[in-house]
Amino acid sequence: MQSAAVAHRHFLDGGATAAFPFSHLKSTPTASPFSVRMSLREDAPSLAVVGVTGAVGQEFLSVLSDRSFPYRSIKMLASKRSAGKKYTFEDNEYVVEELTADSFKDVDIALFSAGGSISKEFGPIAAKCGSVVVDNSSAFRMDDGVPLVIPEVNPDAMSHIKLGSGKGAIIANPNCSTIICLMAATPLHRRAKVLRMVVSTYQAASGAGAAAMEELELQTREVLEGKRPTCKIFKQQYAFNLFSHNAPVLPNGYNEEEMKLVKETRKIWNDKDIKVTATCIRVPVMRAHAESVNLQFATPLDENEAREILKKAPGVVVVDDRASNHFPTPLEVSNQDDVAVGRIRRDESQDGNYGLDIFVCGDQIRKGAALNAVQIAELLL
Amino acid sequence: MQSAAVAHRHFLDGGATAAFPFSHLKSTPTASPFSVRMSLREDAPSLAVVGVTGAVGQEFLSVLSDRSFPYRSIKMLASKRSAGKKYTFEDNEYVVEELTADSFKDVDIALFSAGGSISKEFGPIAAKCGSVVVDNSSAFRMDDGVPLVIPEVNPDAMSHIKLGSGKGAIIANPNCSTIICLMAATPLHRRAKVLRMVVSTYQAASGAGAAAMEELELQTREVLEGKRPTCKIFKQQYAFNLFSHNAPVLPNGYNEEEMKLVKETRKIWNDKDIKVTATCIRVPVMRAHAESVNLQFATPLDENEAREILKKAPGVVVVDDRASNHFPTPLEVSNQDDVAVGRIRRDESQDGNYGLDIFVCGDQIRKGAALNAVQIAELLL
Repeated sequence: MQSAAVAHRHFLDGGATAAFPFSHLKSTPTASPFSVRMSLREDAPSLAVVGVTGAVGQEFLSVLSDRSFPYRSIKMLASKRSAGKKYTFEDNEYVVEELTADSFKDVDIALFSAGGSISKEFGPIAAKCGSVVVDNSSAFRMDDGVPLVIPEVNPDAMSHIKLGSGKGAIIANPNCSTIICLMAATPLHRRAKVLRMVVSTYQAASGAGAAAMEELELQTREVLEGKRPTCKIFKQQYAFNLFSHNAPVLPNGYNEEEMKLVKETRKIWNDKDIKVTATCIRVPVMRAHAESVNLQFATPLDENEAREILKKAPGVVVVDDRASNHFPTPLEVSNQDDVAVGRIRRDESQDGNYGLDIFVCGDQIRKGAALNAVQIAELLL
Repeated sequence: MQSAAVAHRHFLDGGATAAFPFSHLKSTPTASPFSVRMSLREDAPSLAVVGVTGAVGQEFLSVLSDRSFPYRSIKMLASKRSAGKKYTFEDNEYVVEELTADSFKDVDIALFSAGGSISKEFGPIAAKCGSVVVDNSSAFRMDDGVPLVIPEVNPDAMSHIKLGSGKGAIIANPNCSTIICLMAATPLHRRAKVLRMVVSTYQAASGAGAAAMEELELQTREVLEGKRPTCKIFKQQYAFNLFSHNAPVLPNGYNEEEMKLVKETRKIWNDKDIKVTATCIRVPVMRAHAESVNLQFATPLDENEAREILKKAPGVVVVDDRASNHFPTPLEVSNQDDVAVGRIRRDESQDGNYGLDIFVCGDQIRKGAALNAVQIAELLL
């Protein structure tokens, strides 16, 4: 059985499609043999990847390789179930080790993506061993003293953390929807100060992990065959359907995914007064999120200036071709590093130039998770 | 080949699935033979359905039958290409006639859904012949003197139009996204006056017609087989993807679909000052739209009162089960008359109870088009 996501890439880049269902989680290695030799070197930090067998764990390896991240050694850690599994990374074979309290001796940087409970248990242990933990879970994001970082947005939040100081630390990777939204909103916020944001998301299966992507594909095949779709990860039909995000709903009626956008934005922008509301929806798309973002500013900002600001913003690409009706799509940003922004226009419902509507797409696994974490690690070098 | 949408219904209602790809466009007839006998009677108006072979045209027939709409005769009209085609409607066989300037003699009510240009040409001709035209296109919606009607919202707008007065008229059916949004927003507007609405849509293939639904299904099969998807109706991949609505983009950066929501809301609510912004997105769903709607009120309205108001609203069903995370989905409203509303909650980004977020789903072909038009016709009886 061939993966839909592989077929996506086939359509995306015209490349050959592999039979391995999760080829789409692997990188298109850009590192040359030369850069590979450079990446593995004595003076570089030792790395550990916690949750290496998962969708984001695999993407950590892809991104490290793509960016020629320098390392002295790399430890692949996962649950007992996956221990013994072998991965080839940059021409060397590695055996997955079981994650234990002893896993972090001599580990300089530990990239965590194994779920909140694993992070809660082993993050502090790793930090105590002197490792700098970059954690992709929500376990520590709102903790005082834990920087919540998007490198293009608030690198200074982690400037006090140094490698090789012997002092370990935990740095949190924001939630995927927050990263993708703020990559586009921050350059505009710096210029005109955002007072209020109304966000509606169109979230991919990948946010719920590799198994959710497989379920979407399986369900789609079943529905096309007139069969009742298999619902294991999600309790309802996902194929040809959409539904409110599956995160638990809180007493205020928002689900946890939505409140992450509200609270993480305040912490990352260091502005307790920033007003954010969000409605998070899962759509039958494989691995990239889209977000419709309505912005209200403290000072006027016209759409042309906003477009120019976004064109210059690092990690952002403007796709805003009104004439040919070409705007960002999840498919076009899949396996891409940059967040795409388009539909940049004056908000007809606000006075003057105090409001803008924009539409943003970003790869949930890459910039929404693994890439952002590796960029955080790069700030430590 | 079996239609995905048929499979949807199979999953929805457990009913048998037909081999006919567009069974899902047909009604689940609720009319008993008795009511069928009642519908066809001498003292009832004569009907014409213009564009009878299309998705909405077929749904007109389904809804007329479901609701036992009384008629003396019914004329099935379409382009020359479809003339001669036969349909069985309530046990009688009808031959599709070519639409001409002479088609409307002795026609009391003409239901139009054949595109804007056909409406522009033949709508006025039908009205001149004394027919009351209910037009599903955008041709006349914003014209002064043409009522734009959602029966549950503004029936009075057409109260001056009478059947059998010999005087013809044109009544416009609003755009699908407007109908679905205002079915939920109006009961709240009546209570607390909406000042501003920020809408993001999740629109189904059906809005672009039956051929678009077929293309979504075909593309999905192709992508799952690793083939390059066929792009005829839409110029880009729709399967496992989403994109900004394909309507032409206007100089203000909004597309026509979005400006319909802005302008039609003002006309239907008879309030030139109502502030609306919209971002319209196509998602890979078959026949029901979803909309994330952020509301700002002139007077406070708490979420509990809003929920009670919506529970009492005609044509609206509240699906808002936070405990089991069950909220409206396009699949659950497919082939249903009611618009479903959920995620009803206080907007955290607005002061006090001056703001609410809601999530709305409605069947685009049914309440979004055919049902609303037939309800308009019922107001004439």
